[in-house]
Amino acid sequence: MTTGQMEEWRFPSHYNQDYLPEKDQPYWFPHRETMDPQERDAAVLVRLREVMEYAYAHSGFYKNKWDQAGLKPADITSFEAFEQVPVVTKQELRESQAEHPPFGDYTCIDDAEIHHIHGTSGTTGMPTAFALGRRDWQVIADNQARILWGMGLRPGDTVFVAALFSLYLGSWGAMTAAERLGCKVLPFGAGAGGGMTARAVTWLARTKPRGFYATPSYALRLAEVAEAEKIDPREFGLEVMFFSGEPGASVPKVRDAIANAFGARVVDCGTMAEMTPFMSAAATQGTPDGMLLWQDIVWHEVCDPQTFRRVPYGDEGTPVYTHLERTSQPMIRLASGDLTRWTMEDNPCGRTYPRLPEGVYGRIDDMITIRGENVYPIEIDNFLRGLDGYGGEHQVVVTRTGSMDEMTVRAECRYPDGDRADFARAGREGLQTVLGIRVTFEPVDANSFTRAEHKSRRVDDQRGIARNA
Amino acid sequence: MTTGQMEEWRFPSHYNQDYLPEKDQPYWFPHRETMDPQERDAAVLVRLREVMEYAYAHSGFYKNKWDQAGLKPADITSFEAFEQVPVVTKQELRESQAEHPPFGDYTCIDDAEIHHIHGTSGTTGMPTAFALGRRDWQVIADNQARILWGMGLRPGDTVFVAALFSLYLGSWGAMTAAERLGCKVLPFGAGAGGGMTARAVTWLARTKPRGFYATPSYALRLAEVAEAEKIDPREFGLEVMFFSGEPGASVPKVRDAIANAFGARVVDCGTMAEMTPFMSAAATQGTPDGMLLWQDIVWHEVCDPQTFRRVPYGDEGTPVYTHLERTSQPMIRLASGDLTRWTMEDNPCGRTYPRLPEGVYGRIDDMITIRGENVYPIEIDNFLRGLDGYGGEHQVVVTRTGSMDEMTVRAECRYPDGDRADFARAGREGLQTVLGIRVTFEPVDANSFTRAEHKSRRVDDQRGIARNA
Repeated sequence: MTTGQMEEWRFPSHYNQDYLPEKDQPYWFPHRETMDPQERDAAVLVRLREVMEYAYAHSGFYKNKWDQAGLKPADITSFEAFEQVPVVTKQELRESQAEHPPFGDYTCIDDAEIHHIHGTSGTTGMPTAFALGRRDWQVIADNQARILWGMGLRPGDTVFVAALFSLYLGSWGAMTAAERLGCKVLPFGAGAGGGMTARAVTWLARTKPRGFYATPSYALRLAEVAEAEKIDPREFGLEVMFFSGEPGASVPKVRDAIANAFGARVVDCGTMAEMTPFMSAAATQGTPDGMLLWQDIVWHEVCDPQTFRRVPYGDEGTPVYTHLERTSQPMIRLASGDLTRWTMEDNPCGRTYPRLPEGVYGRIDDMITIRGENVYPIEIDNFLRGLDGYGGEHQVVVTRTGSMDEMTVRAECRYPDGDRADFARAGREGLQTVLGIRVTFEPVDANSFTRAEHKSRRVDDQRGIARNA
Repeated sequence: MTTGQMEEWRFPSHYNQDYLPEKDQPYWFPHRETMDPQERDAAVLVRLREVMEYAYAHSGFYKNKWDQAGLKPADITSFEAFEQVPVVTKQELRESQAEHPPFGDYTCIDDAEIHHIHGTSGTTGMPTAFALGRRDWQVIADNQARILWGMGLRPGDTVFVAALFSLYLGSWGAMTAAERLGCKVLPFGAGAGGGMTARAVTWLARTKPRGFYATPSYALRLAEVAEAEKIDPREFGLEVMFFSGEPGASVPKVRDAIANAFGARVVDCGTMAEMTPFMSAAATQGTPDGMLLWQDIVWHEVCDPQTFRRVPYGDEGTPVYTHLERTSQPMIRLASGDLTRWTMEDNPCGRTYPRLPEGVYGRIDDMITIRGENVYPIEIDNFLRGLDGYGGEHQVVVTRTGSMDEMTVRAECRYPDGDRADFARAGREGLQTVLGIRVTFEPVDANSFTRAEHKSRRVDDQRGIARNA
């Protein structure tokens, strides 16, 4: 066993709150981040068993689920055995909370240990409540401080957290991590309308932060508002912009648009709110493309969406996540419903983690099937951002006449009405090439569509097909 | 000197983070809260000198200001001497920040010690930036946990923080205090529009918090939204609702409206964002009316607005505040511009602090002079809340024709248009009695006016008179 060599590796986790690496050191925990991946995996396997023993002892949810599947934590002596553990779905979590309100019987800590309550927005169905323990809150901050260090942030940097502070965990996770790192945090929040984005511009110009966190949609919105006020977003002096909540930061053209507007490095990160420390998938300063899977914080498996067994490196699949350090509501094989592709190669930064070269690029249920072809909305976004004259927003409408599906893309165009023929042709032909289907393409005036203050919703599928929540 | 007996009394402050009183103990620090006030004052006088020595040594702002006034911290050997220290105005803070961006030369800590950046909203003039040190952030949480304890909150209680999390410090101060107390915090935030208030109703009904923090305006708005959704706000089970940001929680009719709608105890607190721990003026479970002045946390003087010397107990004046425990941007004799009346009597809770029996009921520059009579907008609010048929919101418009001032109050009425004669007469006659001037009173439909998601702004003075910011 190599666990003795791994910095601060024990369960439940307790990190030394005074620890900080030397400022010029690229790694927070050099050994854990650069060790032989097979040795790391061996340590993780032991940890998976420990986490399962803990969950089995402290939660009716996991005990019942695993008893029904006829398995015991002690059986998990190989990753093949672990891949037999049935996945947890968000629907199961909702049902558990309905039966055992408010936090569900997968909550493993006493009520008195709960420190923060957060939740999903509930825009699709009943919201899920998150109960985060005092120790977990600290461990999350520590884990994510480690990952912010990898992105190149350092003590004393000002970090502007632009995302809304409410039920949404993203902003809180970014803030506590930056606090743990010894940064100056400006927790601005946003989405409150009433000129808050214009105020964000004022405060960015005034405080000149080095780090910035938001959703990609919000960053693009912010650049537009700054430009409308005749302020070049490059004057903010941002260097490291990290994003979660949407796939945009790994969509090449969205990424370029943000990087160019702000003159900053764009870093993608994020898994799911349930999985916080959600930054366990995150790029680094030395490996800026896609996201590394920090396998000693959360165990990431990219799986076949039917069998939930891991696919080989190089293949596409759906992420399945397991907490290695959480004790309040540990997720063990949570099915994400997302889509990605993973690889295992030498990373320029020296970390020995697998990587998602294109990030998490969609959800299984985001996929739109048009006349038998599978279309991911993100492909449309990426194409339009590279189209000359594109005004920055679009809408996708899917309809059915008889048995015939039709997709209409309405895209904002910066050129005046009489001058859009080239734009219309390039859009129509380009989308046909990228998507492999014929699309109705309609240029509309710039600023026709509302900008998202948080996450964008651009697809209106009017066919009335039942979709997963 | 009695300071040796005072719990955790030293400067700079460092509180034992493991300390919690016994659950049935009414005081956090029994001695500090119930000691002979003259002994406390003697200890405070020593502390005032210490804080001034610290500020003189660490800030150009205070050194220049006091050098120009010909005084030295060592001169402060009596409260009479302290009352000669020139007050600090918000305008001076803005000027200091303009000359020494971004935080001003009254900032006494190194840049690397800054933990959080917050600020004023800047709705009136250039916003002021707050730089809060790591130690101060902790001391604020500790101070305010002590005051929440006095309000009757205890470890394990769920506390719902409804106010917006952004530049505004109120919500952050309430949250960190509840965290320090060992509560379960639901930092909901609000003001983001788009159905967030309806979502707040869902989460209140689901998590049944014991404690709640917001502005009074927002609580009234929340009750309206709950009732529109056929949910009785009493079902939330709230017990302790504490408020700052507006005077409402000490305005009898506003206070009653909130207490009745939610079936909860209403607690007023708050001074100014610059003064955080702003809860240094706060009611307690045993002394629920008005606010006690926790003189060992912030030194409160109620002063003559011209001379800035203390007025006798029983008299009206303007609060002047001095930090006793802050080191990042200590405020020493900050002029509030507010209006209040203070008393010194035996408090039912046993704390030996002075009290503001009617809370902070206005600002010097809120006062509207109409034909030589002084009118405070809060008197109008309080009268209307007691008026049968009142719809919950109103607007005050002040105009001038020639040299003649006119005040028009437009008040929402719950009765239909043909049925408002009694309401109109009672409103007109009642306001004339309360304010001592003739007022034009116009009933309008219920829900005519937008509800404040944060603080209400109800007065539109169209006379073009120069007013302070």
